[in-house]
Amino acid sequence: MKLALGSVLLTDLYELTMLQAYFDAGMNETASFELFVRGLPKERNFLMAAGLEQVLEYLEQLRFTPDELSSLSKTGRFSTPFIRSLEHLRFTGDVDAMREGTIFFPDEPIIRVTAPMREAQLIESRLMNLAHYETVVASKAARCVLAAPDKLLVDFGLRRAHGAEAAWLSARASFLAGFSGTATLAAGLAFGIPIYGTMAHSYVLAHDDEAHAFEQFARSQPENATLLIDTYDTEEAARKIVALAPRLAKDGISLRGVRLDSGDLGEHARRVRGILDAGGLRDVTIFASGNLDEHRLRQLFDDQAPIDGFGVGTRMNTSADAPYLDCAYKLVEYADEPRRKRSEGKASWPGRKAVYRLTGPNGVMAGDWVTLAREKRDGEPLLEAVMRGGKRCGEPVTLQAAREHARRALRALPSAQRTLDVDEPYPVAISDGLRELARRLDEGRKG
Amino acid sequence: MKLALGSVLLTDLYELTMLQAYFDAGMNETASFELFVRGLPKERNFLMAAGLEQVLEYLEQLRFTPDELSSLSKTGRFSTPFIRSLEHLRFTGDVDAMREGTIFFPDEPIIRVTAPMREAQLIESRLMNLAHYETVVASKAARCVLAAPDKLLVDFGLRRAHGAEAAWLSARASFLAGFSGTATLAAGLAFGIPIYGTMAHSYVLAHDDEAHAFEQFARSQPENATLLIDTYDTEEAARKIVALAPRLAKDGISLRGVRLDSGDLGEHARRVRGILDAGGLRDVTIFASGNLDEHRLRQLFDDQAPIDGFGVGTRMNTSADAPYLDCAYKLVEYADEPRRKRSEGKASWPGRKAVYRLTGPNGVMAGDWVTLAREKRDGEPLLEAVMRGGKRCGEPVTLQAAREHARRALRALPSAQRTLDVDEPYPVAISDGLRELARRLDEGRKG
Repeated sequence: MKLALGSVLLTDLYELTMLQAYFDAGMNETASFELFVRGLPKERNFLMAAGLEQVLEYLEQLRFTPDELSSLSKTGRFSTPFIRSLEHLRFTGDVDAMREGTIFFPDEPIIRVTAPMREAQLIESRLMNLAHYETVVASKAARCVLAAPDKLLVDFGLRRAHGAEAAWLSARASFLAGFSGTATLAAGLAFGIPIYGTMAHSYVLAHDDEAHAFEQFARSQPENATLLIDTYDTEEAARKIVALAPRLAKDGISLRGVRLDSGDLGEHARRVRGILDAGGLRDVTIFASGNLDEHRLRQLFDDQAPIDGFGVGTRMNTSADAPYLDCAYKLVEYADEPRRKRSEGKASWPGRKAVYRLTGPNGVMAGDWVTLAREKRDGEPLLEAVMRGGKRCGEPVTLQAAREHARRALRALPSAQRTLDVDEPYPVAISDGLRELARRLDEGRKG
Repeated sequence: MKLALGSVLLTDLYELTMLQAYFDAGMNETASFELFVRGLPKERNFLMAAGLEQVLEYLEQLRFTPDELSSLSKTGRFSTPFIRSLEHLRFTGDVDAMREGTIFFPDEPIIRVTAPMREAQLIESRLMNLAHYETVVASKAARCVLAAPDKLLVDFGLRRAHGAEAAWLSARASFLAGFSGTATLAAGLAFGIPIYGTMAHSYVLAHDDEAHAFEQFARSQPENATLLIDTYDTEEAARKIVALAPRLAKDGISLRGVRLDSGDLGEHARRVRGILDAGGLRDVTIFASGNLDEHRLRQLFDDQAPIDGFGVGTRMNTSADAPYLDCAYKLVEYADEPRRKRSEGKASWPGRKAVYRLTGPNGVMAGDWVTLAREKRDGEPLLEAVMRGGKRCGEPVTLQAAREHARRALRALPSAQRTLDVDEPYPVAISDGLRELARRLDEGRKG
């Protein structure tokens, strides 16, 4: 009972029953689906696109193994000719998408898939699973970056992330959004993200003497020791470190930092900074953790708490205040005809779309247009061709390049979107062409 | 850059730097760590333990591959003798735990690991990652089960679960807690969970005519067709189904159900039930989905909405109102000495503990005692030996057996815990022996 992350069966059953029905009817014309969000959670005033690289990797390797075909067959829900048709199924379609790190808003497609219907439908569940979660995390992490500019921010969230892939992808998405590194070793090594670590309370507790624990750890990690000082009494521990430092210095060992993990972090940081400075340890940095999010970071930042870096875990990895987005992957065109769902409260715009972004002379985003793909507008088109005929257009974008793109994107945010509180909404306009098409489709339906 | 789910590097960097320090100091006495939660989220009045099976599987296969040792070595943070010592590291310890499906409360250990320190420390991150998330989901899903007793509840959450493993584990944890099945195909097949599926709006949209879409789907899935009827006009679609049914019946095809996914679900269900019944389709069930959670389920249930089953996705899989628990894996004993952390607001009880549960003559839970492991109390001991010397005690508990245990556990819940609103807290008492030990340790510290 092992999870195979690349398995094509990592999908909703209905994707395959729909494929069977399309197969029976001989339907497989070209379909365009667009991934977008219907609205912002009230705790967000912008979103940051992420996860495209994982989506493209998924599409490149999409195939049914003989074992998978055999287990499909055993469900008794699928015909043998249909199962045979899946043997050679590959993703042969086109993908247009916003670059990872791009800021986006409701109704703006971030990924468009254009492919034979069965391919485009089959991939829905996993495409959403990947792009939704990384976007959730990048959007949350970006707020942390805005809240504490130029501070060291480290992803600390493996233990309470929702499973291994969430830890893995959130290390990536938070780094993309501007975090400095991660504590999740496997993700750091795989993605080339700097890895950070301190020590656990258990390490201190296992020693009869706290100062002894500190010394042993520092001697074991002579270049990287960050000591956790809140197991018993934070300020007392800071004084122990002042007493210990000269002995370590004699052996060429300098401490990197101390970590606070409980109590009033700002107040402890001030006292500890005082103790360290008075003890000649101005270079020893203060690192803080413990249920942090962008609001706590902003407060500590505004209070000028003398904290150099933060471990931000659970609330970022789970995006605790807004753990999901109201996103959808909707059919917008089939067999060259635009399509539109009209379900109550969930109507979507028809047709293949483009997004254009206007930027003011000050370099700040000034407003977006959502248009039909064939319309032209001023501004920068945000969707670009990333896959054609199942093959990537060019080399994969490196994580560093995506991070640089995200950095520039955050720099161009309007002031209303830089605040953590929801403020005036960013202007996104729907083109007349798009409105006209929707009206025409609704009238055709009624007639 | 593939995630290896069983990789021992799926851990926090600090676990390994602590191991290096223990190695340097020759420290590897027996340690006991306990996993518990510090407090209930305000949206929960009980929790359900889950994830133990995945934890045991992880411990059984724990080892460093040559590639992993080589990448550790390349970080430059670890000594060669230490890395060599990891080559033969296996988990050789003991595990005591609550059975999956057991109800539990703050301060009650749900998993205790007793092993040589380095083994017990190394596994912290992934053990928490697995047990925390499944417990989060089982606890949320159990509330859905309480809210809509005897209704068909299906996990619909793959697309917005936080990555693939979250989808996978939440299919399992929700089934354990009493859900009827899942839409996530791979998880259903692997865990033997019944799989359910309907159709997407795109399927209807791809056809020029809604009734034609329904007919094709029903003919393709003659035994399993549940038709989605809210793409355009819900009641009109229900009438189309009434018109279609006799033609299908002639070919021996009977529809299984219809699905509502938008608008006022209770109101639509009443109207649709009326249309179907008047059309002679009393056996066609009504299935509803769309941002459901235990509160919406309870309301629909209380309103006696004629809905037979529910697809419950995003809010369950992400546990949207309480996406994480304040859980900890704390050292409670090292080298035969009890240990206790005293950090502000995060102090924990020392020593290896037991939990005893009293049950009233009516079969209802009456209160728990948290005691030292060596103390005895009336009631049922909740922790049992599940692993000794790295080997399981007996065969793995089947998912069906765990689900049956959960079902009995929910039946024994006091009425205050059966409500969805937080009510009077369940009585959990800390034994005098435990209090006395904590006092003694604190005094020893001060002295």
